Amino acid sequence: MLLTHATLATMIDGYGLIPHAAVALDGDRIAWAGPMADLPRAYAVTDALHCGGRLVTPGLIDCHSHAVHAGHRAAEFELRLNGASYEEVARAGGGILSTVTATRSASEDDLLASALRRIDQMIASGATTVEVKSGYGLTIKDELKMLRAARRIGDCRPVSVQTTHLAAHAIPPDYKGRATAYIAEIALPSLRAAHAEGLVDAVDAFCETIAFSVDDLRPLFAEARALGLPVKLHAEQLTDQQGAAFAASHGALSADHLEYLSPQGIAAMAAAGTVAVILPGAFYTLRETQAPPVAALRAAGVPMAVATDLNPGSSPMASLPLAMNMACTLFRLTPEEALLGTTVHAARALGLADRGRIAPGLRADLCIWDADHPAELGYRIGATPLHQRIFGGRLDA
Amino acid sequence: MLLTHATLATMIDGYGLIPHAAVALDGDRIAWAGPMADLPRAYAVTDALHCGGRLVTPGLIDCHSHAVHAGHRAAEFELRLNGASYEEVARAGGGILSTVTATRSASEDDLLASALRRIDQMIASGATTVEVKSGYGLTIKDELKMLRAARRIGDCRPVSVQTTHLAAHAIPPDYKGRATAYIAEIALPSLRAAHAEGLVDAVDAFCETIAFSVDDLRPLFAEARALGLPVKLHAEQLTDQQGAAFAASHGALSADHLEYLSPQGIAAMAAAGTVAVILPGAFYTLRETQAPPVAALRAAGVPMAVATDLNPGSSPMASLPLAMNMACTLFRLTPEEALLGTTVHAARALGLADRGRIAPGLRADLCIWDADHPAELGYRIGATPLHQRIFGGRLDA
Ligand SMILES: [Zn+2]
Ligand SMILES: [Zn+2]
Repeated sequence: MLLTHATLATMIDGYGLIPHAAVALDGDRIAWAGPMADLPRAYAVTDALHCGGRLVTPGLIDCHSHAVHAGHRAAEFELRLNGASYEEVARAGGGILSTVTATRSASEDDLLASALRRIDQMIASGATTVEVKSGYGLTIKDELKMLRAARRIGDCRPVSVQTTHLAAHAIPPDYKGRATAYIAEIALPSLRAAHAEGLVDAVDAFCETIAFSVDDLRPLFAEARALGLPVKLHAEQLTDQQGAAFAASHGALSADHLEYLSPQGIAAMAAAGTVAVILPGAFYTLRETQAPPVAALRAAGVPMAVATDLNPGSSPMASLPLAMNMACTLFRLTPEEALLGTTVHAARALGLADRGRIAPGLRADLCIWDADHPAELGYRIGATPLHQRIFGGRLDA
Repeated sequence: MLLTHATLATMIDGYGLIPHAAVALDGDRIAWAGPMADLPRAYAVTDALHCGGRLVTPGLIDCHSHAVHAGHRAAEFELRLNGASYEEVARAGGGILSTVTATRSASEDDLLASALRRIDQMIASGATTVEVKSGYGLTIKDELKMLRAARRIGDCRPVSVQTTHLAAHAIPPDYKGRATAYIAEIALPSLRAAHAEGLVDAVDAFCETIAFSVDDLRPLFAEARALGLPVKLHAEQLTDQQGAAFAASHGALSADHLEYLSPQGIAAMAAAGTVAVILPGAFYTLRETQAPPVAALRAAGVPMAVATDLNPGSSPMASLPLAMNMACTLFRLTPEEALLGTTVHAARALGLADRGRIAPGLRADLCIWDADHPAELGYRIGATPLHQRIFGGRLDA
């Protein structure tokens, strides 16, 4: 397969723009990419896909999502806007526990079916790789159910799915005040069982005053290491718990959210090569006023990824281009940083070395956009001018 | 045509929810709407459209857009985020004048073609009626060209288009410091010529320190009155110019933006029945911190509409559901107010009495959503779970 007449954003050293470009594919891999004038004869074909000058980027990578869950929280959203207090919302069954209750009641097939509706929106917005976390089961059985549903997404849709074990997402009511016991009795056994079933690509946790402390999480991250699994962490979203430094000390792939990240946390991430995953959807929905320290992260050379954080409470958003626009508008990322954040750096946040750029040998996941320049993707507010896409070398228009 | 098994949001007295509902259509009009159990025999058919319990709302109405224009401003967006000053952006050809230059260079066919791409996004987000303004020509010829292109949208797509003359959008360089002359020499003649061609449904202007004062605009609004055309006004977006009260004194359909609206302005709007059009996209993009006085507007009984303000500079956004989410999250409208704002009150902001609710005799413009409850539309961030839509009685899936 050959693409011609593309405006190529290879994402190598920034945009890596090549006008009048061609991309040759060999099976599910990129074989060659460069100016059309330099196309080797071996790749010339008569039935090339003429891109009409359109922008071609790597397929977008959503490196932080909670796409598997049951129900939605529109009623809670409405209650709050009608002036209900947090207590009233909780009494009406709202908050994360309402999603936990709904997810526990749902079958694996139910979870898969509702996740596919969200995944289809993500795909329609340009995602070709999606990370999906557990974390609304909070029992061994229900965490496994979520991860099995997440794994099956990849059988139903052409998107690549990376699964993340997040049993340490919240402390369920029956473990209130007993975080250590929850980690020992639910998080660790569910991790071992899920890993044994091949359901875990990475281990994540929510480090926050309302969830788990760094000390609570030590046994979990030790177990992840013992199992050979990479870790990541929801860190410094609402307060500084020194979670990012803790994660970095375990060689974490990423620390995510980071509104309250300290200079020490930045230094630790820079030293460890941990990616900063920027999640503007939750910042926006929660009307947070403290932005992550983007300028300091940039200065320290910490790679920044951008993701949707798709979840029913704080970020009911499926569009990576919208996340990119919010990262630019709310956090002052440049459009180039935002696109690096959903390609190169998102791949790195998932430990995937085989995608996120357009170069020989990498996976042939490509988006063809009705756009002239990659800055257009972050500039528009939630528009998805996707013309065609290619998943693993296969055109899916 | 008959819809059955709908969850109906009639938008009569709030959501006006009717579960297990049916809607009978007669040509392009709604003939009957109510509980399925009450469906009159005359409307029963064998091949009804089974909505499967899905939410059915009036087709959404975008009552403020600049969908006709040439080019985009992604390069300017990128320049700014790379730290360029306003002066540097202007020197690089940025700002509204770059859109004016591009629009003057474009043919009417070019303008129509690029507008249709935006209109298709608006339709895909649920819009069945769209207002489109001129205002990037700023010469008689180019304002007419924009309005002709806007009129032709309705011939190319099933959406209803309302056209608004907005020659008083900005002062072009050759009229710098001569607002009165611009109104006399360009705005008034272009209005008369456009009206003579049947191209004008309403007259709008931008009242602001950087554009036109209330005094500058008196001759324009007097001419609109003489021609029998309703007026509306971009008012109090950046500063309080008492534009809203001026507009209300002319019986304006709407005053739009309103971040700096005064109590006197609110009182004048309430007395005149002028709709407040809330435009969160521009607030968001400009990182404005002063929200429109929503609580005071609500208390005064001023109807609030919500629109995209689709434009290439301050609001490159085509999705009404995203505008609704922003109105809720940024301005604290309730999801019910947000949906009233894109149906009932948007119709009123355009002077259209024949749409915006689901009731006998009104236009059969309907959206069928993959949703259970209307609060879901404002709750999600930019999702468009549109299942099917009906334009003037015709199914367009
Ligand atoms: Zn998360
Ligand atoms: Zn406007």
